Amino acid sequence: MNKPTIGVIGMAVMGKNLALNIESRGYTVAIYNRTNARTEKVVADHPDKQLVPSYNLSDFVNSLEKPRRIIMMVKAGKPTDAVIDQLLPLLDAGDVLIDGGNTFFEDTIARNQRLDQSGINFIGMGVSGGELGALKGPSIMPGGQKEAYDLVAPILQQIAARTDDGQPCVAYMGPNGAGHYVKMVHNGIEYGDMELIAESYNLLRHVGQYSMPQLAQTFKEWNAGELSSYLVEITADILTRQDDQGSSKPIVDVILDAAENKGTGKWSSQSALELGVPQSLITEAVYARYISTFKEERVAASQVLPQPQTTDLKLSADFSEQVRQALYFSKIMSYAQGFAQLRAASEHYHWQLNYGEIANIWRAGCIIRAQFLQKITAAYQKNPELTNLMLDDYFKAICAKYQAATRQVVAWAVQAGIPVPALSAAIAYYDSYRSAVLPASLTQAQRDYFGAHTYKRVDQEGTFHYSWYEEQ
Amino acid sequence: MNKPTIGVIGMAVMGKNLALNIESRGYTVAIYNRTNARTEKVVADHPDKQLVPSYNLSDFVNSLEKPRRIIMMVKAGKPTDAVIDQLLPLLDAGDVLIDGGNTFFEDTIARNQRLDQSGINFIGMGVSGGELGALKGPSIMPGGQKEAYDLVAPILQQIAARTDDGQPCVAYMGPNGAGHYVKMVHNGIEYGDMELIAESYNLLRHVGQYSMPQLAQTFKEWNAGELSSYLVEITADILTRQDDQGSSKPIVDVILDAAENKGTGKWSSQSALELGVPQSLITEAVYARYISTFKEERVAASQVLPQPQTTDLKLSADFSEQVRQALYFSKIMSYAQGFAQLRAASEHYHWQLNYGEIANIWRAGCIIRAQFLQKITAAYQKNPELTNLMLDDYFKAICAKYQAATRQVVAWAVQAGIPVPALSAAIAYYDSYRSAVLPASLTQAQRDYFGAHTYKRVDQEGTFHYSWYEEQ
Repeated sequence: MNKPTIGVIGMAVMGKNLALNIESRGYTVAIYNRTNARTEKVVADHPDKQLVPSYNLSDFVNSLEKPRRIIMMVKAGKPTDAVIDQLLPLLDAGDVLIDGGNTFFEDTIARNQRLDQSGINFIGMGVSGGELGALKGPSIMPGGQKEAYDLVAPILQQIAARTDDGQPCVAYMGPNGAGHYVKMVHNGIEYGDMELIAESYNLLRHVGQYSMPQLAQTFKEWNAGELSSYLVEITADILTRQDDQGSSKPIVDVILDAAENKGTGKWSSQSALELGVPQSLITEAVYARYISTFKEERVAASQVLPQPQTTDLKLSADFSEQVRQALYFSKIMSYAQGFAQLRAASEHYHWQLNYGEIANIWRAGCIIRAQFLQKITAAYQKNPELTNLMLDDYFKAICAKYQAATRQVVAWAVQAGIPVPALSAAIAYYDSYRSAVLPASLTQAQRDYFGAHTYKRVDQEGTFHYSWYEEQ
Repeated sequence: MNKPTIGVIGMAVMGKNLALNIESRGYTVAIYNRTNARTEKVVADHPDKQLVPSYNLSDFVNSLEKPRRIIMMVKAGKPTDAVIDQLLPLLDAGDVLIDGGNTFFEDTIARNQRLDQSGINFIGMGVSGGELGALKGPSIMPGGQKEAYDLVAPILQQIAARTDDGQPCVAYMGPNGAGHYVKMVHNGIEYGDMELIAESYNLLRHVGQYSMPQLAQTFKEWNAGELSSYLVEITADILTRQDDQGSSKPIVDVILDAAENKGTGKWSSQSALELGVPQSLITEAVYARYISTFKEERVAASQVLPQPQTTDLKLSADFSEQVRQALYFSKIMSYAQGFAQLRAASEHYHWQLNYGEIANIWRAGCIIRAQFLQKITAAYQKNPELTNLMLDDYFKAICAKYQAATRQVVAWAVQAGIPVPALSAAIAYYDSYRSAVLPASLTQAQRDYFGAHTYKRVDQEGTFHYSWYEEQ
């Protein structure tokens, strides 16, 4: 066998699949895992593959071509630091260490700086696509030293997913934490997409009284149009599935309605709050997951807190079309917020993110892959300085066309007592963003009244304070 | 003069006023400021007061009765650390150092632990009420060593605001960061209250077409009822005020509609996200401030993003009463979320917060002071284990009674194109919390589909994974 071109540390399912993916492109891959048994099993399960196992880190490092290329696929946080601490004395200046885990971007920034002092390149690399993506072709978001990216780019381009028109779903995101940041916002957007689908499904089911086959059919039809996306596609499939434990119920009716999370959506919201950018839709999606976990409280509350008096909602005949439009409109708001957040982060951290390219590498491989991402790429190609996605001609037209349905659907939901936090956040964002005047002047007046915080004026430069406590 | 009982460091307006407040209760107060000129001015402006100035920290510390009681009123963050570092060698075990700034609670936890190693007591003390409150009687939220609190309690009880029935608005909150945490949530709730008032005002003005005198009158009337509160009271006053720069416009029409913030609302939302509790209303209020700051973008967007087609909203004759009910309903949701967050924090940080007492000390002195806080105190007195405020008999009845108006108002606003992020979040929270079944089972199915994240079932214990990729 050849000397391995690259090594992968961590043989849990993501690491194993990424190693097999790389190997399948003609590379010899060194592999290592903290516990030997796992490494042995990978080798035993794949006897014909060009995998070079090592049973200590020193052998692993020494087995690699120089400059060394190492991908860590280990748990984020302390386990990642532990591996780095063990690797550091074994590496040489110019080597490239890649963290492919779901790491918090600020940790990546700190590690990049720390390793840079020893001349070691550190890439924080977001990988989306789940187990299957890792094996067959994920969307890859690497950030770190550009020269280090260039050393691994040929491999990453081969293992990444490809768009319909053959472009690999990987690109250099920017310095230090840029890759993990983009991946974090990707995950936040994923939370938003999932919540919007959940609210739409809930509306069709409980307001529209759709049967399960009608629901599956509706999502299937939606997937053939503007909403064409992986998440809508799997929703249609999920809604056809029966319980696998013998009951005759649909699987969604036996799964506990308590949504878990791995923290990336939360990070995304916390960062938006830190940067001073509104990211209400994703945040509502995170909170929707939280509230879902209070199952016992909810069941108890449902007994005592009354629902609305049933009123005649006068649903239109094209109810599902109205919901579809509301979903698409709201999805646009979510992405508008997400890309505005990326812009704020890019400025704050000096990353020079390329928004069109980001949308492009999300077009295949990752969980939020969707046809409409091409429209986002096109929008930023037309105008790289676009302030907000809504202002692009295509999206502006959709907003104008679909806002009426969105308003109608939110009004129906609120009247019917069906929670639609994300759809509501979408229309509130649209209406806030297109408001030349907001009531925030009253807020400023209050702040000046009780705290002498001062205010600016619409007609003069400067900072002002009103003598609230003197007689008029 | 007597040896000073207590000292205040930092003679900016809050520190000065707090020192004068303490002095006015018969105490001799040592004062110190980093720059001497400020100290000299305080002494010169108040020649008859029992204030003992010092012009270096060592003299200041030595001038105090033992165990020493020192309140720092300096900027949060590095300036606070700088003062602590200078003080530490001058203090003795048993002394009580109090940070009365708007400090992030995690910093307070760390400082409490650090000083505790030298036997020095450290109290993080939230102070609300603005300049005037500091002088006349603020609401005070101290956390730290209980024995240290007992050493300053007699003073704090004298300088604090008093409720109508004569109770001082101060109480021991809990260990280390408890006081600053409670103050942070207080501020978050303040953001929520202010945003709800802003949205209500905006609706009355632009949907209801109320004139400025009608608006002022409406808030004045509201202040005489269930909504009686400082913020509603000052809103009524603000809406009567004319421009002080000579135009004939109302002051709210010349103040720039870009709401600033000092970060405590943001912290409150970030902590809720961290603790896994939904706090959607306050977070929407924070985001509403953020979006207001994008004034130029909004003005540009208002030219290109269309408003809704005007439709006949069929407003009822009692429009303002409907808005009032929506505001009160939503305020209850905001406090329900805030107190649920306090409960989660209390468990997480082992603080044993007393929720009824917290509501009690917010009844006077602070910005969110309001009549209805008595109802919260009563609810927790009746049931200290109350899971959610909404489940208390009084609040349950209001929810039942006012939900219809809230739904109607949100529907009108959404149809009219008036942004109501906080009112929408309120009804979404109510409907989510009283939903025995949420569509989160679909979310869980999706997570299991693309990431093999597994799920729980409604009918069996255990963790399950569905074979999504096998033929049915």
